[in-house]
Amino acid sequence: MNKQYALAIHGGAGTILREMLTPTLEKQYKDALTLALQKGQEVLKRGGTAVEAVAAAVVVTEDSPLFNAGRGAVFSYEGKHELEASIMCGKTLEAGAVANVRTVKNPVLLSKKILENPDFVYLSGDGADKYAALNGLELVDQKYFYTEERYLQWQEVRDTNRAFLDHNVHIKNAEAKAGDYKFGTAGAVALDQYGNIAAATSTGGLTNKKYGRLGDSSVIGSGTYANNNSCAVSCTGYGEFFLRSVVAYDIAALIEYKGLSLKEAANRVVKDKLVKMGGEGGIIAIDAQGNIELCFNSEGMYRGYVRSADGKPNVFIYE
Amino acid sequence: MNKQYALAIHGGAGTILREMLTPTLEKQYKDALTLALQKGQEVLKRGGTAVEAVAAAVVVTEDSPLFNAGRGAVFSYEGKHELEASIMCGKTLEAGAVANVRTVKNPVLLSKKILENPDFVYLSGDGADKYAALNGLELVDQKYFYTEERYLQWQEVRDTNRAFLDHNVHIKNAEAKAGDYKFGTAGAVALDQYGNIAAATSTGGLTNKKYGRLGDSSVIGSGTYANNNSCAVSCTGYGEFFLRSVVAYDIAALIEYKGLSLKEAANRVVKDKLVKMGGEGGIIAIDAQGNIELCFNSEGMYRGYVRSADGKPNVFIYE
Repeated sequence: MNKQYALAIHGGAGTILREMLTPTLEKQYKDALTLALQKGQEVLKRGGTAVEAVAAAVVVTEDSPLFNAGRGAVFSYEGKHELEASIMCGKTLEAGAVANVRTVKNPVLLSKKILENPDFVYLSGDGADKYAALNGLELVDQKYFYTEERYLQWQEVRDTNRAFLDHNVHIKNAEAKAGDYKFGTAGAVALDQYGNIAAATSTGGLTNKKYGRLGDSSVIGSGTYANNNSCAVSCTGYGEFFLRSVVAYDIAALIEYKGLSLKEAANRVVKDKLVKMGGEGGIIAIDAQGNIELCFNSEGMYRGYVRSADGKPNVFIYE
Repeated sequence: MNKQYALAIHGGAGTILREMLTPTLEKQYKDALTLALQKGQEVLKRGGTAVEAVAAAVVVTEDSPLFNAGRGAVFSYEGKHELEASIMCGKTLEAGAVANVRTVKNPVLLSKKILENPDFVYLSGDGADKYAALNGLELVDQKYFYTEERYLQWQEVRDTNRAFLDHNVHIKNAEAKAGDYKFGTAGAVALDQYGNIAAATSTGGLTNKKYGRLGDSSVIGSGTYANNNSCAVSCTGYGEFFLRSVVAYDIAALIEYKGLSLKEAANRVVKDKLVKMGGEGGIIAIDAQGNIELCFNSEGMYRGYVRSADGKPNVFIYE
């Protein structure tokens, strides 16, 4: 054990402007981010693994109604909640991912359960819910995911989305208004005392999403990736662009194959390549040396980190 | 237009031994591969795009009962057929993917329809079937996917898989026996006369798959990737390993970031990295210069290619 550990988290990126958050709400976000860091830190401090730590941190964001993951998951077009998550271990390259689960309280824990089973990496839909039940994970009714704020957001976009089928212009305005919650996602990356890294991501997807739409959060390589040889990455942003750009693995490849530093690789992908495509969002990344990057091209990203050096959680929202 | 075009296809990799195929069956496979090449070639010859060509080639394999894609899709544990597919354009990096569709005759055409819609990249489950219906794609009953051979394969594995729950040993033997059809998948990569490349992949997944299990065939970056700057890749193999290795994008990254040739990059990933993990399978790849690689670490891979230079289809099965 090298005794050094570090952890970073995000709670989504997007049009998060100072004037949009009341001081009370800002404090709630910062408290929740701090708690997530502390829960992950507890695991790392007592010698737990990076996989356990990222799961513990993401569980806090899933249990909070503030983030678009778990409890606070947005409404789909059909008024349902369909959740996605994934997790990866940088030491073994084992991975677990779930798409479109509806009854699992903590999709990140289902991902972790899948990671631990060598037979599977990626489970989806009712089958994934069934696997969760068989493995004793906590199940909830869809009502558990009801929050008034998400419901009101959905109503606003839902109305204009009906119009979308007839009038393209209307939805464009609604999407701009909905910008804040559009990129909600939570994630964590960690370095444990054994020198291993891991990443995890969880989301409720897009408000008013249709047709079983999936983003990057359940996709190993795009939303989540971890490899001790390069870095661990968790993404949040406009999923379609992150899928097409294979964002998480691209950052790892720039480090491993092109020799870029973690900072250079993150900046290249988030502030150059994604910007040129129009892909708004951000990433958090960590490497086996304990370097941390919190990088985004949007107005804000709920984020934070903690290191063993001082053990003090640091949380941020705006640029 | 540079007038040069090229196309490569695969119909799955695995334990394909000469003694397993009768001369009649071998001829059927070779005829089907040749037809797929010809259909893709027709598109390229008349100035169609690489995206159109890979779709046309994969449709032939989907319509044939010989390949584990479309018509010949294997049975899931519940006796259903759940199909996955994806497609990507190397010029625009536009992509389309579908997971767990059940009523779409040609999942690759649904992927192409999604690629053409900037709002989506990845659709899944009933919602994806619904999107197919709304977009006028040909729908079929699940019975369409019934083939006696696949049914018998399922029955064999199904029985031992029941035993799997109690006796781990049995299923291991059954899996070895089922090796041939385990990695069935079809795919194509193409270079068109405009100098653009594309890739597409389609599969029925694993025989007896459970819990909404997904492999790499619907995952952009793992099963399918295309970028004019590096290469276009379609994979077939043990999906879990291909997901964890982000195989398709890894080959592209080795070319773009490390300066490897297409051959070097394909060999590094398929014959070195995947072998070390235990990931059996293969890939086909093409670059914008018209180089083609058909690379696998299993006993055989149904495969072929055609180039504008002589216009003659070449098909192979064994090493």
